[in-house]
Amino acid sequence: MNTFGNIFRLTSFGESHGEAIGGVIDGCPAGILLDTEFIQNELNRRKPGQSKLTTARKEPDKVEFLSGIFEGKTTGTSIGFIIRNTNHHSSDYENLREAFRPSHADYTYQLKYGHRDHRGGGRSSARETIARVVAGAIAKLVLKEYNIEITGYVSQIGTIHLDTHYKQLDLSRVETTPVRCPDPDIADKMITQIEEAKAKGDTIGGVISCVCTGVPAGLGNPVFGKLSAALASAMMSINAAKGFDYGMGFDGIHERGSSINDIFYKKETGDIGTRTNHSGGIQGGISNGEDIYFRVAFKPVATLLQTQTTVDKEGNEIQLKVKGRHDSCVLPRAVPIVEAMAAITLLDFFLLNKVNN
Amino acid sequence: MNTFGNIFRLTSFGESHGEAIGGVIDGCPAGILLDTEFIQNELNRRKPGQSKLTTARKEPDKVEFLSGIFEGKTTGTSIGFIIRNTNHHSSDYENLREAFRPSHADYTYQLKYGHRDHRGGGRSSARETIARVVAGAIAKLVLKEYNIEITGYVSQIGTIHLDTHYKQLDLSRVETTPVRCPDPDIADKMITQIEEAKAKGDTIGGVISCVCTGVPAGLGNPVFGKLSAALASAMMSINAAKGFDYGMGFDGIHERGSSINDIFYKKETGDIGTRTNHSGGIQGGISNGEDIYFRVAFKPVATLLQTQTTVDKEGNEIQLKVKGRHDSCVLPRAVPIVEAMAAITLLDFFLLNKVNN
Amino acid sequence: MNTFGNIFRLTSFGESHGEAIGGVIDGCPAGILLDTEFIQNELNRRKPGQSKLTTARKEPDKVEFLSGIFEGKTTGTSIGFIIRNTNHHSSDYENLREAFRPSHADYTYQLKYGHRDHRGGGRSSARETIARVVAGAIAKLVLKEYNIEITGYVSQIGTIHLDTHYKQLDLSRVETTPVRCPDPDIADKMITQIEEAKAKGDTIGGVISCVCTGVPAGLGNPVFGKLSAALASAMMSINAAKGFDYGMGFDGIHERGSSINDIFYKKETGDIGTRTNHSGGIQGGISNGEDIYFRVAFKPVATLLQTQTTVDKEGNEIQLKVKGRHDSCVLPRAVPIVEAMAAITLLDFFLLNKVNN
Amino acid sequence: MNTFGNIFRLTSFGESHGEAIGGVIDGCPAGILLDTEFIQNELNRRKPGQSKLTTARKEPDKVEFLSGIFEGKTTGTSIGFIIRNTNHHSSDYENLREAFRPSHADYTYQLKYGHRDHRGGGRSSARETIARVVAGAIAKLVLKEYNIEITGYVSQIGTIHLDTHYKQLDLSRVETTPVRCPDPDIADKMITQIEEAKAKGDTIGGVISCVCTGVPAGLGNPVFGKLSAALASAMMSINAAKGFDYGMGFDGIHERGSSINDIFYKKETGDIGTRTNHSGGIQGGISNGEDIYFRVAFKPVATLLQTQTTVDKEGNEIQLKVKGRHDSCVLPRAVPIVEAMAAITLLDFFLLNKVNN
Repeated sequence: MNTFGNIFRLTSFGESHGEAIGGVIDGCPAGILLDTEFIQNELNRRKPGQSKLTTARKEPDKVEFLSGIFEGKTTGTSIGFIIRNTNHHSSDYENLREAFRPSHADYTYQLKYGHRDHRGGGRSSARETIARVVAGAIAKLVLKEYNIEITGYVSQIGTIHLDTHYKQLDLSRVETTPVRCPDPDIADKMITQIEEAKAKGDTIGGVISCVCTGVPAGLGNPVFGKLSAALASAMMSINAAKGFDYGMGFDGIHERGSSINDIFYKKETGDIGTRTNHSGGIQGGISNGEDIYFRVAFKPVATLLQTQTTVDKEGNEIQLKVKGRHDSCVLPRAVPIVEAMAAITLLDFFLLNKVNN
Repeated sequence: MNTFGNIFRLTSFGESHGEAIGGVIDGCPAGILLDTEFIQNELNRRKPGQSKLTTARKEPDKVEFLSGIFEGKTTGTSIGFIIRNTNHHSSDYENLREAFRPSHADYTYQLKYGHRDHRGGGRSSARETIARVVAGAIAKLVLKEYNIEITGYVSQIGTIHLDTHYKQLDLSRVETTPVRCPDPDIADKMITQIEEAKAKGDTIGGVISCVCTGVPAGLGNPVFGKLSAALASAMMSINAAKGFDYGMGFDGIHERGSSINDIFYKKETGDIGTRTNHSGGIQGGISNGEDIYFRVAFKPVATLLQTQTTVDKEGNEIQLKVKGRHDSCVLPRAVPIVEAMAAITLLDFFLLNKVNN
Repeated sequence: MNTFGNIFRLTSFGESHGEAIGGVIDGCPAGILLDTEFIQNELNRRKPGQSKLTTARKEPDKVEFLSGIFEGKTTGTSIGFIIRNTNHHSSDYENLREAFRPSHADYTYQLKYGHRDHRGGGRSSARETIARVVAGAIAKLVLKEYNIEITGYVSQIGTIHLDTHYKQLDLSRVETTPVRCPDPDIADKMITQIEEAKAKGDTIGGVISCVCTGVPAGLGNPVFGKLSAALASAMMSINAAKGFDYGMGFDGIHERGSSINDIFYKKETGDIGTRTNHSGGIQGGISNGEDIYFRVAFKPVATLLQTQTTVDKEGNEIQLKVKGRHDSCVLPRAVPIVEAMAAITLLDFFLLNKVNN
Repeated sequence: MNTFGNIFRLTSFGESHGEAIGGVIDGCPAGILLDTEFIQNELNRRKPGQSKLTTARKEPDKVEFLSGIFEGKTTGTSIGFIIRNTNHHSSDYENLREAFRPSHADYTYQLKYGHRDHRGGGRSSARETIARVVAGAIAKLVLKEYNIEITGYVSQIGTIHLDTHYKQLDLSRVETTPVRCPDPDIADKMITQIEEAKAKGDTIGGVISCVCTGVPAGLGNPVFGKLSAALASAMMSINAAKGFDYGMGFDGIHERGSSINDIFYKKETGDIGTRTNHSGGIQGGISNGEDIYFRVAFKPVATLLQTQTTVDKEGNEIQLKVKGRHDSCVLPRAVPIVEAMAAITLLDFFLLNKVNN
């Protein structure tokens, strides 16, 4: 179950401290110019060590493409790629061979598989998301040809909310703050909360919001292939994700139908649009041509730089002090991951919808 | 894309005003005693006309099994079933042939397929969920053999919340209130809000919470086949669902890692458990043996018994007054649907996990 | 595993002596005029009791469509359908409750599932192919809009071969002989062999050839989604099928590359074609625009009207005399089944290829 | 469509003259000791340059595992692997940039994708089967733990047949002849035919037979997931494969049911077996515990070392002389590929069948 998608499909592999992270992208349209600078830049947005807010682990995270590209363009055949792991500090993890970190996947992997790579969380490490970012970057390149753009940003850290509607935000400023929040004042408060948590060896969660513009109407397939269901699955497959909603989501529950229904009208272009977009661009599981927007909740990182009580494989109580380099807050680095999964999903459904034309 | 699941799979069909709703259940284990009374009872829980809170449309919603069962037991072959639609008032919908109801699927279906059954929403009607309830009931019968139980309840209607932790609730009382909220006082307040909305021809949304007990550790498959991702997809495929979270979800964001991590300990049984369960029974995408609990947000029903402005196929502005029989609030009837999708998902992953044993 | 296809998908159900055979067709394009007369005619071609050559079991085999069609046209939503079983002689099969018919699926089903419907072979009966013929008929209706035609015929019965190349045959005559062989002289010899076998309570096998014309170049997806691999899987899923080849197949093995390679040339239309078509219309797993032709080998029916030695569930040796109504040769009735599976496969790949355009 | 399998899945990538061939193996059971020597030996059996019969292209074909293995054992997570391409003579193929080799995939790839890697056939090169052999070798390692063994051999080259029943052959001798035929006299004749073809710059086809022993009863899933259908699909996905049959296959057609039915009996072990095995170990699509045997027909290689007439992209007639290093007969090297695809399929169905236990 390391494959995601129907037509545009990513199959990924790789452990935190193994030889490489990588994957195979199947179903990518042929003839797409592979802008490797753009792809590398997306990886850099996810990379550790970008700012004081993120882990100090330094990895070049340089992608090598092995197939599916000829003379700079995709050929329609499967694209294999790898990113070598270079900065192992595996000895930092020796004490995790027998111990289960609280709220990590150590225990469930051990129980399910009996044999696991304990180093840095192995396959359950967020390092696996590198493969998602590569595939997402390629998906973005294809989507750009159709003017479909995806922008994520941090809208909550701990108790600090950004409540401004996305239409009122200047999303071109997302990358200007290390926390990837487009409002500089809110960003400062978020940074303060992260630093407070970090100072205590503690961690902090938040919410990433994401806006997809230019998505044509018609993407999504009733009744189990709804675009909303696919986006939910995509987002909930990301490490530490605990919640997903779109449109008015959980916050629209107190509204009445009469205040939240989106009224149709004929746009100047002749197309039919809605005057409001509480639906979040998806109706009956199918995109309606309006902006798609959704949120993803992330829990605080499980890895604390504090001593915690836990058990070893035999169930003996032990005191665990985790070593290694860890983020106090993953949200800023998770923005490109959310975008990548959105891009993969949208391109997949864009291609799927071609069978209806 | 009318199929859900990997091993235990439901493929469904049917329109609101067509001949029948039905489906095919594939991958059901052989030798399961088909308790038809239980199955019918599950359908009755979903049925319209149960109480004054729900639509007056009366349908017997009686399921007929056509295959896969021999001498009362499943044979392991595919189970075909149908539920005849008997109470059409299709003429109520004649004015929808050319019009798009706001926040409904009318427009997106028309745009995607060019030709649609406008009567009662056709395939986009929540009547399709009958097939889910049938498959879910069978899944529940199988899961019961392993002591896995699933209980949903309404935890929010409009502005009325049930904030009590599920462990403090008496879930055996869910069915005693028409709104399916186990706290009678909160239930009364919820009913009042529904009736207020109904009196105005308006509609109201809410949240369903769901608890799954007895789920063994080990269900779920990294990295895209996480149990949490599958549950999210299952829930977001339900009509009017706008959000999903599990464990502490969106509400846990303000917590720190140190307060939310679940500490492992050795239980009296010798198994390893967690002292708290903020994780919601899933860690690293795999069940850890604790209770799984999650929430699903539902928007207010789009169909209002008020005149609304909208457009026809040509984009001309029209005034639309919907006829027919409609719920002001779908939450009470959606409880068995949420449970059904949870049951289908859990059984599917339970069977999938057998390959690891 | 009762689902076939990627985009155009059939999920089927039904036992020989159960309530009904049926299925769900997913992914059918919208707006297709459902020619029910054509569909029923396809079912009639498969039906028992067409001629003295086939079993006397008489069933109307009348299909009822339950969804996915509105005002005579497909809507793009899933099409549910059933065919009631009306002519059960289940008591004929009472002695098979405990016995395993040689070379039948009785034993393997019993072993795999522990609980089986022994009546008429249950799910393993060729009666399940009714659902394939329905889906195939709808696929043919879609393919016809693109001038893609599929014609099967019997090219071998026992020792009687039709060695004429299909281009030299008048395929419009296939339906004029009860054995569905377009050469009347060969057909007569085939009929004689069938009657000889029948007279002895014995059975006889053969080969069906199938020609697909008008298939555009480009269908098929390397490396595991080759059109040839999909056709092979489709054909080998038919009851009693034991072999598949396409183009020169097994018979081309003695040729050299220099004599069998198909030389390209520019056709008058400007398209590129091949002067010969030893490839059978598929190169590198992708259709090349030439006719696709293939063969399917069928073993003699396992059900003999002779006493056979076998065992019961406990392994005790018994003498078994099968009752009921059985074909001595399934080939004539299998022609529409082969065509149906070819149509389903070709339409599926036709739709899949749209994502490349 | 570069993924094969349901539970045990191979997703592959790589072009003949690209950076590497590789793949991802998903669903491999955890705890399997990875015998890298065995895996490399399987690759060596497929490798060019083994004998005078095969192409002189020399590649080390050394596999590097990148994930899914920890301290020598599989972890249950996805296994990424690559094999670098080292011996490019890409300039040999410059004249193929604009030309279509007869009976190759050059034309169909160009037409489908518009942009292709012409060097050495790109993705359509049989070099992609390296990934199959790696996955097959791992599948064999798992199957061995259950005493399931798979042995392929060449049973026909050109007009030279090996007609001896496999039970009468000493299959341990397969590797002793360069042509992988276990009968040394027949092997000599086959070698002569290959050398004759080679001398003329011509090519020659043949048949590979394959025997699978120790397969437990119960593998296969009606009606579209038949083991026979999956094996057919697996084999027909191999380059140059034109036909598949199992059990008596095409050669059993002239038999009557009474002579070909397999009579059940109770074996000394208490299990039920069949006295003959014309069924080829599969009944009703499910393995019955007897040996599975099947055949795969391969056409003569399309690449001739002769001048051939063909067209360029614009359809202009040209004379093409292919350079490079090519096999006159792929059969000997295809034996491990056939075995690999059989191993992948059997393991996949073995794991799938666990859900029934």
